[in-house]
Amino acid sequence: MAKKIRVGILGLGRIGKMHARNILTMKEFEVVVGVDPFLTEGLEQEMKEIGVPKCSKDPEDVFADPDIDAVVICSITETHSDFIIRAAKAGKDIFCEKPIDHNVERILEALRTVRDAGVILQVGFMRRFDRNHGKLQRMVAEGRIGDVEMLKITSRDPDLPPMNYIRDSGGIYVDMMIHDFDMARFVVGSEVTEVFAAGAALCNPEIEEFGDVDSAVVTLKFENGAIGVIDNSRRSGFGHDQRIEILGSKGCLMDSNEPESNVVYYHNDGYCGDKLPWHFIERYEGAYFTELREFVQAVLERRQPAVSGIDGLQSVLIAEAAAKSAKSGKLEKVEKVTV
Amino acid sequence: MAKKIRVGILGLGRIGKMHARNILTMKEFEVVVGVDPFLTEGLEQEMKEIGVPKCSKDPEDVFADPDIDAVVICSITETHSDFIIRAAKAGKDIFCEKPIDHNVERILEALRTVRDAGVILQVGFMRRFDRNHGKLQRMVAEGRIGDVEMLKITSRDPDLPPMNYIRDSGGIYVDMMIHDFDMARFVVGSEVTEVFAAGAALCNPEIEEFGDVDSAVVTLKFENGAIGVIDNSRRSGFGHDQRIEILGSKGCLMDSNEPESNVVYYHNDGYCGDKLPWHFIERYEGAYFTELREFVQAVLERRQPAVSGIDGLQSVLIAEAAAKSAKSGKLEKVEKVTV
Amino acid sequence: MAKKIRVGILGLGRIGKMHARNILTMKEFEVVVGVDPFLTEGLEQEMKEIGVPKCSKDPEDVFADPDIDAVVICSITETHSDFIIRAAKAGKDIFCEKPIDHNVERILEALRTVRDAGVILQVGFMRRFDRNHGKLQRMVAEGRIGDVEMLKITSRDPDLPPMNYIRDSGGIYVDMMIHDFDMARFVVGSEVTEVFAAGAALCNPEIEEFGDVDSAVVTLKFENGAIGVIDNSRRSGFGHDQRIEILGSKGCLMDSNEPESNVVYYHNDGYCGDKLPWHFIERYEGAYFTELREFVQAVLERRQPAVSGIDGLQSVLIAEAAAKSAKSGKLEKVEKVTV
Amino acid sequence: MAKKIRVGILGLGRIGKMHARNILTMKEFEVVVGVDPFLTEGLEQEMKEIGVPKCSKDPEDVFADPDIDAVVICSITETHSDFIIRAAKAGKDIFCEKPIDHNVERILEALRTVRDAGVILQVGFMRRFDRNHGKLQRMVAEGRIGDVEMLKITSRDPDLPPMNYIRDSGGIYVDMMIHDFDMARFVVGSEVTEVFAAGAALCNPEIEEFGDVDSAVVTLKFENGAIGVIDNSRRSGFGHDQRIEILGSKGCLMDSNEPESNVVYYHNDGYCGDKLPWHFIERYEGAYFTELREFVQAVLERRQPAVSGIDGLQSVLIAEAAAKSAKSGKLEKVEKVTV
Repeated sequence: MAKKIRVGILGLGRIGKMHARNILTMKEFEVVVGVDPFLTEGLEQEMKEIGVPKCSKDPEDVFADPDIDAVVICSITETHSDFIIRAAKAGKDIFCEKPIDHNVERILEALRTVRDAGVILQVGFMRRFDRNHGKLQRMVAEGRIGDVEMLKITSRDPDLPPMNYIRDSGGIYVDMMIHDFDMARFVVGSEVTEVFAAGAALCNPEIEEFGDVDSAVVTLKFENGAIGVIDNSRRSGFGHDQRIEILGSKGCLMDSNEPESNVVYYHNDGYCGDKLPWHFIERYEGAYFTELREFVQAVLERRQPAVSGIDGLQSVLIAEAAAKSAKSGKLEKVEKVTV
Repeated sequence: MAKKIRVGILGLGRIGKMHARNILTMKEFEVVVGVDPFLTEGLEQEMKEIGVPKCSKDPEDVFADPDIDAVVICSITETHSDFIIRAAKAGKDIFCEKPIDHNVERILEALRTVRDAGVILQVGFMRRFDRNHGKLQRMVAEGRIGDVEMLKITSRDPDLPPMNYIRDSGGIYVDMMIHDFDMARFVVGSEVTEVFAAGAALCNPEIEEFGDVDSAVVTLKFENGAIGVIDNSRRSGFGHDQRIEILGSKGCLMDSNEPESNVVYYHNDGYCGDKLPWHFIERYEGAYFTELREFVQAVLERRQPAVSGIDGLQSVLIAEAAAKSAKSGKLEKVEKVTV
Repeated sequence: MAKKIRVGILGLGRIGKMHARNILTMKEFEVVVGVDPFLTEGLEQEMKEIGVPKCSKDPEDVFADPDIDAVVICSITETHSDFIIRAAKAGKDIFCEKPIDHNVERILEALRTVRDAGVILQVGFMRRFDRNHGKLQRMVAEGRIGDVEMLKITSRDPDLPPMNYIRDSGGIYVDMMIHDFDMARFVVGSEVTEVFAAGAALCNPEIEEFGDVDSAVVTLKFENGAIGVIDNSRRSGFGHDQRIEILGSKGCLMDSNEPESNVVYYHNDGYCGDKLPWHFIERYEGAYFTELREFVQAVLERRQPAVSGIDGLQSVLIAEAAAKSAKSGKLEKVEKVTV
Repeated sequence: MAKKIRVGILGLGRIGKMHARNILTMKEFEVVVGVDPFLTEGLEQEMKEIGVPKCSKDPEDVFADPDIDAVVICSITETHSDFIIRAAKAGKDIFCEKPIDHNVERILEALRTVRDAGVILQVGFMRRFDRNHGKLQRMVAEGRIGDVEMLKITSRDPDLPPMNYIRDSGGIYVDMMIHDFDMARFVVGSEVTEVFAAGAALCNPEIEEFGDVDSAVVTLKFENGAIGVIDNSRRSGFGHDQRIEILGSKGCLMDSNEPESNVVYYHNDGYCGDKLPWHFIERYEGAYFTELREFVQAVLERRQPAVSGIDGLQSVLIAEAAAKSAKSGKLEKVEKVTV
């Protein structure tokens, strides 16, 4: 068997643990160390049990270790660009959770460092690896619907996150809808040029105090002429509602939600079916796995991964334009930036 | 406008009223008289309100009236063959509810009288006119699934009829499954040669006292080699469950139930949809209408209608074989009879 | 039987004929005359055959006839307000196709005349009477989803109408999306206060020459705080795509398209189902019937019908704001007007 | 971490490899050796690559090795009972593919040896671990549908296996429908007492030469009074068609097939969806994994696994009665046997 890719995981929260578990089932990977600034004995024990041999509070234990080939960044957003830069300078390949950063300048600095270092960077837009969304995108790319005319994405979280999470999130457009902006570019195969955003704090009016909303509709205009619309809610009440629909000159493709089982119960009041997967961890379980398979392949083949740093950048630029539009009440252009 | 088909309706129960209402919306028909042996003033008034100009207790008011062109027989099964014979002898075209009779000899006599009189006879297997079942049958006939191999029919009533109805019904095979025997012949396009029946009184064990069952599974062998299975229950609990599925050498066709609306409610416990149409009147509302359109056309064009007397006969012969098999525990041959 | 409502039909095009056919099956109605300025012998013959006893080119044959109780206005939009006013002044109840007029002043004049004359006016927003949309609306009104938060309406025609139709249509917002604006108000149960519209001529770029578009996305803000989005396309390619979805604090309701049959064909390349109803005549066949049942009831009971003149007015006001927004690229307020 | 369960795998065909791959992702297992009588260098290399450290042609390398705790038997059916007996006598826990044997006497000998040795035996009825079938069974067991009345299982392979496979298969009832007999007992929660079988060689008439059929319908009677029906075809043409439906006194549960993706394509001829998983390996991918998780747990907790030797025995007894009925044309009793 070939030499394993030795990995350091930065951030051992919910996402970090999930990635660790997935990595540990892949024979191409070897986890060297897990890093978390809030490391406790309990966490260290937990990581040991799932198979992470060593833990640390110091990111430098990753960046300074010449035996580590790649990093998986799952720490808080504020640290992402810094960690990318340090990893790139240390010659390590990088898998980084979305968003790269809330600040475009810092993203650019990170991407330039990555480019100059010649390392591989994959951004964690796992939804692209979902079997349904992926199939839909391939069918569009193969021309099944002819020219793309209209895109609709519905994306709803099951329930409101804690208020302090929302306060620090950067707002719904960069925190939540960013996934949908990436999906929009991915599926349509064209860049977003203008956006209009309208939102309201309907699930919890207190969110207004942070200048944020929990329900939003964003209209998109694409370079190829297509138009699109994304709707987000922080609280569907019925699980992680994730649907895409795309109309073209030769027909329409739709994907839909999948309940936890397909058992249907017919009774004298109608019929009932099972719950949807509650949140992204359950909904995108397979996709989280597959995106790391892509990272493995990109690293082994020394090639650009399917989700690049530019994808990380563009989605933030769209989010910024959306936030601006939500304030101005006008259609706003998406900034054009060169790395 | 051409001369109208003047109609006498025999039997003003639930089915008779429904047919009367349908006939009254068709400009090719004129209802002359409605006959019911249990005619009351209330019923007469009700019929007047829906547009039946005259009522009577005496069937002879239909058969003896030279101005009546056609009869619609919705009276109790015991009267069917007699009324068919009298109508045929009077030169009137006949629409008769299923079954023609429980007794094969009487059916043969009726069919021979019809043949000799040269009148038109359509039997009320309305399910053939359902848009879904009809579409499925046409696709089979067009060869979409290649050679037919296996048929499955699920047919369930919503709830048990009154015990005295069951007592006088002739048993589940001739009373209820007869519709499915007709559907089987219609969809497969081949005669049933052998059957095996197994049943049990599961919804109400008292039904056993009549030598009857309320739940039954019947295996069918067809002349063309195909095999089939029908399941019946007198009490689904969730409406009139009516589904057909047919497998052939080139694929499979399935039709399904349609709830009263297609609105789906997603909530934190799963999703829920609307009720199914409760019973045959609601489920086959459109088919009851369309079968009379076929009768109109057959009468106007002096041609065999889509459901003939032979169809009425064959379904009873299969039902008899099924009842015999249920007793013998063996595969039984369907009797061959020539009109 | 009670005295019939004697009706004059104005406009004998496709919609006029359909209404005539529906009216002729209802025993409460009697069609007196059909009027069309382009009446030909052929058309007169056709009307006779479906049961309209008399035809004329002159609308005055309706307005001046004291024996006519009600008018059904299916003529071109330009005539609607004038005909409403003349009918109202003649004391006749009015069923009028949508839109009442493209001009708000003329709508107001018509509505004031109706009010002063005390006649009944129902506007032809037939979609409200669709069994699926209607069920969804009732469930919202009953509080099944709690507080309404987000509405989504997808509404697409199967194919582009002739270019000269588009040229004279008043634009996509008042011609096509007006149905969706009415549906939005109906389902949400609150007035639209602001809109943002974005569109493009994607199906046929020549439409741009009329200053119009064939694909549009409109964001709505409602008085009750809810937000909504409507997407329209003049050419779905697969039939009359008509779906509604509404999210509230206690769950989400969705209705969906219904193919012509529910037969599904499974084969070695996947599965296939039937076509959708192609256009509004087929898609809303039942609704067109039911809206006239409502008109009958409103006339007999001398009450406000379920779709009033105000509904006709409000939908035009929203369409105007949408057209304005499409030009300004900004959120625009819906004008407030009192009759 | 606790001591690992050291496993020897017997049979390295398609199923053996799949189990090996699944076992290698579970940290509780350690694969010691893979045995196949037809071991080639290529196969040995392939096994090494997926992580099996050692291969052998001699089963004794498993049974005689005191360091091996458990065996996974995936060799041909003829070897199963012998291998079970040898493993049991060596004190090793056993996972054995279905069926245990075609011969009831040999099954009994194997089960008695297992019982006397106190080892754990799980039989490979993986379908019980499918998320949909499992959910349906749990809902029945929880009483959601009240008393069970009627069971329907549809189970179809995508295409005919090679003729020599069919020749040596023991016939459709013990080779293919055995899974459905087990599922019937599992879901209904009661033993099958009588069966009637009817079949035909419709996919390939040459199968008749082996005294076998490729299409079969079997009626079941259960101890608790319920009735059931299973239909099998060796060639659906559209994938591994696997559906269960169960009617009770309080409603009906149905599970359905899941295509490879849920993307639906609407076009001007209707709509199309994706293929079904082609065969059992794809269809039950998750279930094959989960059944081994159950084996791990049963071994670690020293308890009876969810699928026992008795389950293996009973399904064969039903298959024997079905084969007998297919010949006799009569309802046949299922033999009662005590281990």
